[in-house]
Amino acid sequence: MAKAHVYITYKNGVLDPQGEAVKDALSSLGFQGVGDVRVGKYIEIEVEKSAPDEIRGEVEKMCQELLANPVIEDFRVEIPNGNNNPQPPKSEA
Amino acid sequence: MAKAHVYITYKNGVLDPQGEAVKDALSSLGFQGVGDVRVGKYIEIEVEKSAPDEIRGEVEKMCQELLANPVIEDFRVEIPNGNNNPQPPKSEA
Repeated sequence: MAKAHVYITYKNGVLDPQGEAVKDALSSLGFQGVGDVRVGKYIEIEVEKSAPDEIRGEVEKMCQELLANPVIEDFRVEIPNGNNNPQPPKSEA
Repeated sequence: MAKAHVYITYKNGVLDPQGEAVKDALSSLGFQGVGDVRVGKYIEIEVEKSAPDEIRGEVEKMCQELLANPVIEDFRVEIPNGNNNPQPPKSEA
């Protein structure tokens, strides 16, 4: 079993009400100078494949079909100890 | 403004119903050989500090006071382009 890490974030320009709420709450708690806060998802998935490219392909398909909403979200897949050349976030839109 | 990335995950042994649901949904969609799935949070925060150590200290305090539930969750703070020597996930418990 190999592990993949998935990061899902709202696209730039998409309003993030949860992030706004966190920012306000941090200010209320006394944290000063807090700028933009964006809340996304972090998913760890175990898959049976072993080649990094195969894992990446499979997990990107999972993102497109289920994990991310490509209309408003970007996703990024990382394979621990795999080939993680900088890759731009992907989306279908 | 400097950015910090926060990763919040359930501790080992804590049941993750959302992860279980995602795993079942992936199987229903035809993905085979999907193992454990764990769903956590990924938060990007902008703070006014500039020294990586100061940023890390401030954001870890935010995690302990608001962002993570230290009873059931671990958190990890990363500073992009900062000193990210491998650090164990932290929790209060």
